[in-house]
Amino acid sequence: MSRDDLQQFHDQQRHAYETLQKAGLALDITRGKPSAEQLDLSNELLALPGRDDYRAAGVDTRNYGGGTGLPAIREIFADLVGVPADQLLAGDNASLSMMHDTIVWSLLHGTPDSPRPWSAEEKVRFICPSPGYDRHFTICEHYGIEMVAVDMLEDGPDLEAVRELVKDPLVKGMWLVPTYANPTGAVVSEAVAAELAAMETAAPDFRVFWDNAYAVHHLTEERVKSADILGLATASGHPNRPLVFASTSKITFAGAGVSFFGGSPENVAWYLKHAAVRAIGPDKVNQLRHAEFLGDADGVLAHMDRHRAILAPKFAAVQEILSDRLGGLGIAEWTQPKGGYFVSLEVPDGTATRVVQLAKEAGIALTPAGAAFPYGKDPRDRQIRIAPSFPPLEELRAAMEGLCTCVLLAAAEKAVG
Amino acid sequence: MSRDDLQQFHDQQRHAYETLQKAGLALDITRGKPSAEQLDLSNELLALPGRDDYRAAGVDTRNYGGGTGLPAIREIFADLVGVPADQLLAGDNASLSMMHDTIVWSLLHGTPDSPRPWSAEEKVRFICPSPGYDRHFTICEHYGIEMVAVDMLEDGPDLEAVRELVKDPLVKGMWLVPTYANPTGAVVSEAVAAELAAMETAAPDFRVFWDNAYAVHHLTEERVKSADILGLATASGHPNRPLVFASTSKITFAGAGVSFFGGSPENVAWYLKHAAVRAIGPDKVNQLRHAEFLGDADGVLAHMDRHRAILAPKFAAVQEILSDRLGGLGIAEWTQPKGGYFVSLEVPDGTATRVVQLAKEAGIALTPAGAAFPYGKDPRDRQIRIAPSFPPLEELRAAMEGLCTCVLLAAAEKAVG
Repeated sequence: MSRDDLQQFHDQQRHAYETLQKAGLALDITRGKPSAEQLDLSNELLALPGRDDYRAAGVDTRNYGGGTGLPAIREIFADLVGVPADQLLAGDNASLSMMHDTIVWSLLHGTPDSPRPWSAEEKVRFICPSPGYDRHFTICEHYGIEMVAVDMLEDGPDLEAVRELVKDPLVKGMWLVPTYANPTGAVVSEAVAAELAAMETAAPDFRVFWDNAYAVHHLTEERVKSADILGLATASGHPNRPLVFASTSKITFAGAGVSFFGGSPENVAWYLKHAAVRAIGPDKVNQLRHAEFLGDADGVLAHMDRHRAILAPKFAAVQEILSDRLGGLGIAEWTQPKGGYFVSLEVPDGTATRVVQLAKEAGIALTPAGAAFPYGKDPRDRQIRIAPSFPPLEELRAAMEGLCTCVLLAAAEKAVG
Repeated sequence: MSRDDLQQFHDQQRHAYETLQKAGLALDITRGKPSAEQLDLSNELLALPGRDDYRAAGVDTRNYGGGTGLPAIREIFADLVGVPADQLLAGDNASLSMMHDTIVWSLLHGTPDSPRPWSAEEKVRFICPSPGYDRHFTICEHYGIEMVAVDMLEDGPDLEAVRELVKDPLVKGMWLVPTYANPTGAVVSEAVAAELAAMETAAPDFRVFWDNAYAVHHLTEERVKSADILGLATASGHPNRPLVFASTSKITFAGAGVSFFGGSPENVAWYLKHAAVRAIGPDKVNQLRHAEFLGDADGVLAHMDRHRAILAPKFAAVQEILSDRLGGLGIAEWTQPKGGYFVSLEVPDGTATRVVQLAKEAGIALTPAGAAFPYGKDPRDRQIRIAPSFPPLEELRAAMEGLCTCVLLAAAEKAVG
């Protein structure tokens, strides 16, 4: 484009943006929260297990005890997350808490393979495939664990970079959302998982925090299967390397679901030993409630089909509007996930912060630019996370149209300098 | 008694014990668990909040968020535990977890008043009024916090010993069950609480872990009121000193209740800051369920009356059998609690371990001797914790009769040498 064309393009975008501002929107596509319509799918839970129904295989779920969680709910999720039921613990309402506690106990006690508590090391480093899940990074930052970013590619983290980093004995772990990753939707391939399971690491206690938050959260008819990280690691002689996390937060109720921790028998025993100091057991009534509602693994998959019926049109709308407004201009790229909760949008380098600011000033709340990177710093300031799930479809469409207007204006501003 | 009389007494007790063994009992009075009959009092919870009932003052309890817990449940418990509702957080099913996390965050980050994280001190010490709650002591032991026992008297911990210990800047805290203490049933008086609140401590970040687990768990018509530790500490210029914990574990369901953390605004903000890294919020559906079931503070008290109707006869049976079998012999003393879950029995020095062993060999499970002391070591080996709540009345009577038989035999064995 000529200088005049650019200026004209900019003025058009500025005009469009001013029109957007006048609309006085109040929209929010910040977080991966299920919508009320999705939560309604599980409203039966609100009256379960039902008066006088509290026994599960002889256990009185109302009373203390049962640190492993109820066998019934562990069996339902064992196949779905690829962990034998007796190596899968069921907990309270947040797998994030299980990850947090695993980090804390590793810091204060060390893992079964640690020569000393992590806090006794001069420094602890974690590999952070990026963009990634901001709450993982927050845990690291909160506890002084140094984060080292590697690129998250379409089939998983950049293995070359990972292999180099694990030569450092202070690199004790890595985060990974293996299926429908937050926020790119990438799926870790069996080949990449095999390499992560088999590679030599300088730290004997290197851990892969395999946060399979979206294991069954398909957006298409294809039910993409997660790599069998536990089997691969065991076969490679590193059974203690993977720690598998999952939850029903985006299956039933985001705030009142059931979480899961899986791993080798040694890791499970380690987790239970520490968890027993923290509580006498998880909320087994909620686990019974979930087991009755979901029934079995097929019940979970059928339930997820009902989520898909609500979510797929929203993700389709996001794709449609991004294509219509930004397609073919060469200024933006975005992911087309087959599952999960996010679309990752890449805008011209150095404009993501400006886009988020423009959107905010037009009444559209976006996740802060950089949030998906360690320390909140996107080195190219280009990545924006779109969370289509929560708003009703019409609000989502309005927010996406507005977002595209902001992307175009920010790109035009950059071009005119 | 003469030597012959003693031998005859011993032989009688040995004979009684052999008869007991032949009865082949399988009884358990180890833990302070509510009985099935008590849990039945709250079975309405199993069908609450009810299908399509999930809103609380505009909040969708099913979704993420709300780290402070639901205002409705915080308001119900504010008066009952003596903390303003906006300084009282509601959590998941275990106040023990809140205590654990408070310790962990103090170790890794320090409190708002700490010059450095506790883990950066050369050593951290806690005052442990004893006998006390074994799970408190387990947390200390697990995290390498050195425990220093002081006597638990009838109106609270031995203040003279406490005052001496807090001259040590490494003494960072103390455990205390202020009302109907575990296991003695002691109630911390307003005067003792005032002194704990006002005393000078060398550590600027000294904390009283005020575990008011039995605040409303009365066994008589007298509803003993807990000392107002938060008000006293604030008036003394030490608002951050007390950390108040409570739960509904022995009000509704032991494994599926709601926990509470209360304190100064600064402590509450500190707790929330760390808790937000661990989870996006507690199980608000369970909090709504509890708010609807309990209604208000009077509803809680009325509910506790129904517990009392079940528990008081069991505690009466314990007193009756102890008096009948051990009274007037000068070999044992025991507490007569006005609330809580335990009776503390003191047998002749050096015989508690033997009593527990004899009971075990007669099919009666007791809490291990020494469990109520730091490191599991009762310096005089004389204290036994009786937990009357769980077994049905007839089983409790049989267990108590058996226990008395064991106490008498162990005393006789000691006497004959």
